[in-house]
Amino acid sequence: MARVVMKFGGSSVENAESIKRVAKRVLQSQQSGNEVVVVISAMGDTTDELMDLALQVSPIPAPRELDMLLTTGERQSAALLAMALSDLGGTAKSYTGSQAGVITTGKHGDARILDITPGRIEDALGDGAIVIVAGFQGVSRSTKDVTTLGRGASDTTAVALAASLNADYCEIYTDVDGIFTADPRICSSARHVPEISYDEMLEMAACGAKILHLRCVEYARREGVPVHVRSSFTDRPGTWVRDPETTTEGTPMALEQALISGVAHDRGEAKITIVGVPDKIGEAARVFDAIAERDINIDMIVQNVSRVSTSRTDISFTLPKSDSRLAMEVLNGLKESVGFEELLYDDQIGKVSVVGVGMKTHPGVTARFFRALAEADVNLGMISTSEIRISVVVDADSVDRAVQAAHAEFGLDGESEATVYAGTGR
Amino acid sequence: MARVVMKFGGSSVENAESIKRVAKRVLQSQQSGNEVVVVISAMGDTTDELMDLALQVSPIPAPRELDMLLTTGERQSAALLAMALSDLGGTAKSYTGSQAGVITTGKHGDARILDITPGRIEDALGDGAIVIVAGFQGVSRSTKDVTTLGRGASDTTAVALAASLNADYCEIYTDVDGIFTADPRICSSARHVPEISYDEMLEMAACGAKILHLRCVEYARREGVPVHVRSSFTDRPGTWVRDPETTTEGTPMALEQALISGVAHDRGEAKITIVGVPDKIGEAARVFDAIAERDINIDMIVQNVSRVSTSRTDISFTLPKSDSRLAMEVLNGLKESVGFEELLYDDQIGKVSVVGVGMKTHPGVTARFFRALAEADVNLGMISTSEIRISVVVDADSVDRAVQAAHAEFGLDGESEATVYAGTGR
Repeated sequence: MARVVMKFGGSSVENAESIKRVAKRVLQSQQSGNEVVVVISAMGDTTDELMDLALQVSPIPAPRELDMLLTTGERQSAALLAMALSDLGGTAKSYTGSQAGVITTGKHGDARILDITPGRIEDALGDGAIVIVAGFQGVSRSTKDVTTLGRGASDTTAVALAASLNADYCEIYTDVDGIFTADPRICSSARHVPEISYDEMLEMAACGAKILHLRCVEYARREGVPVHVRSSFTDRPGTWVRDPETTTEGTPMALEQALISGVAHDRGEAKITIVGVPDKIGEAARVFDAIAERDINIDMIVQNVSRVSTSRTDISFTLPKSDSRLAMEVLNGLKESVGFEELLYDDQIGKVSVVGVGMKTHPGVTARFFRALAEADVNLGMISTSEIRISVVVDADSVDRAVQAAHAEFGLDGESEATVYAGTGR
Repeated sequence: MARVVMKFGGSSVENAESIKRVAKRVLQSQQSGNEVVVVISAMGDTTDELMDLALQVSPIPAPRELDMLLTTGERQSAALLAMALSDLGGTAKSYTGSQAGVITTGKHGDARILDITPGRIEDALGDGAIVIVAGFQGVSRSTKDVTTLGRGASDTTAVALAASLNADYCEIYTDVDGIFTADPRICSSARHVPEISYDEMLEMAACGAKILHLRCVEYARREGVPVHVRSSFTDRPGTWVRDPETTTEGTPMALEQALISGVAHDRGEAKITIVGVPDKIGEAARVFDAIAERDINIDMIVQNVSRVSTSRTDISFTLPKSDSRLAMEVLNGLKESVGFEELLYDDQIGKVSVVGVGMKTHPGVTARFFRALAEADVNLGMISTSEIRISVVVDADSVDRAVQAAHAEFGLDGESEATVYAGTGR
């Protein structure tokens, strides 16, 4: 008997029919011998509709009350799924995040899970019930108010519950079959990835792969929760996200790692360049402090070598397009005090990244990547690397060519499925 | 400074605009120096829509889950009202029934309030906030599950909160100006009633006056909470429901009570007659036990004198039309074992009642009422009386005539407002 957490997103519970379909799938899992906990998102567009209603009442809705309002969406779908399960003869109980013991920080709209006290869930599982938990929400430890974890954070709820319940694994149901070596819409030769490590998945998520929430992967890695990302519309196996050691139930595998496990891209960023910053200690810090104060997340930062003639330097950084307007305002406000020359803004860019734990032990990956891009006539803007990732910023209209070139260069094209942790070398 | 509980029903919060209107009214009350607690119903048709959704998922929705689902409606309107208040510069916090400390029995769909532990509300009031509580809901003392108090029970939530918070009074906002001496749609001479006792209001509610929930009036009487029923669309005074002693802030009034304070009618009942019940001890009890087991509420019961020739009797009773189908099924199932002859069913009836504490000390009211009905050519079916009420069942098409005749007979017609507790006799 396994203990499983199954998470279904809004697209899996759009209407009464799809809720009934999910109920059948959940009941099957229990009937095959599993203890089942379900984490569920709000139905289809419910959250957007509630947000519209809030904005009709108040242009800047009070954060505490917005959380109170938005959390009702998941409570509704959780209750409806429990009804559908009862109707099929199952025993099911729905719980709000608060009832399920999801204890969070007090930051409304973007709370962090501090602890989970799943006493009621354990009791219900002990009684043989299927437990359904409203995702995306918790209760503040200090104020006892209802909180939300930020959009899309039901994945995180699921993994956190799986960890605190010592579940064997967590299934994230979505509308695709899992992770691919590249976006199949760009790269027709992209292959399905049956397994990927936490570190690689984390880099993929950070580099624009939308399939799993970044925080969810971080949580899964920290707690060692195996995550199975799969389609709610088929029975095909999806992608397992877990440490390679656990591949064959604890027996360590001697394996030759593929150099690159996937190519990710992201068209959601813009680039800001601050031209002519006086090259004094602390100037860059002042700029980025001001940005951070407004809760704007910076991705890549590049600072050029100072021009000797002027003792001035240029600083470029990328950030989500949605934050760029605010960032430009903040920076313009600093122009006098910092004394830089001008601001340049460019949102016709894309970021292309290759990710793979194999590059740790294989030098020369960067060179191969850059050569392949050059041969595809792709001009590189900014460059940023981690131990298992290389990212470049390119012109927006070069993104597709860059993805295709990298995918071919690292041997990801082919007829068979990608086998990131294949037992034999290649 | 007064402490006030204000309750707004679904028709007062149909959309964003009406929520903003309610917010202004609530803020005015606080700005005039009151401590304000608001109890709110779900927006417009939300509860019906959620019920439809539940029925799409399951023909007989699990009661625990139905409560989980339906309670989200009030949580949404509570959060939206809090946002609207914040937007006007007020400080407001919304609470679920559970957060507000509304402790109930565990009967889903029809729970009773056992206790209120308003610690969080008191704290928020102490901080100067306007407190908004989602009506119609609480939390089960035994299971900690979310419960509902039955449709329309937000009135009861409001009065119960007023009692536990030692509020000075409870305002119930609705779409009419309060209580009238009869339904103005039937009786054009019906007058507004500025004040009415708990006992009279209780009889009026039980006799079909829809304006206040029966359980709410019972609660208000038991706890001595003055209730002000008034329109959310005007500033006119409504009807005060309270003990006459409290009329002028504690100074007892020597008053001459009107004989009758109002005429109520109810077209929502049907009559069932069980013909030829063997006149043995316990037969009637068996019949009504079986009815009660199915949670069917009986109103009036009349048993005729036994026919000497056959030792059989007829039993008639009235009940809500909505329950009559089930009741007929239950009774048909008893035909063999009880051995009655046949069942008669009639839903073309109406109940007309006169209510007034004055009749306690004035004999002859019954005679006057019956004579007035006879003169209006109204035929009496069943009759039932209490200390301050006389009810008769009449043909459905006689209801209007009966109401008009009674209204005229007891001097309720007139140009001025009815003054039930007038200082001078008449």
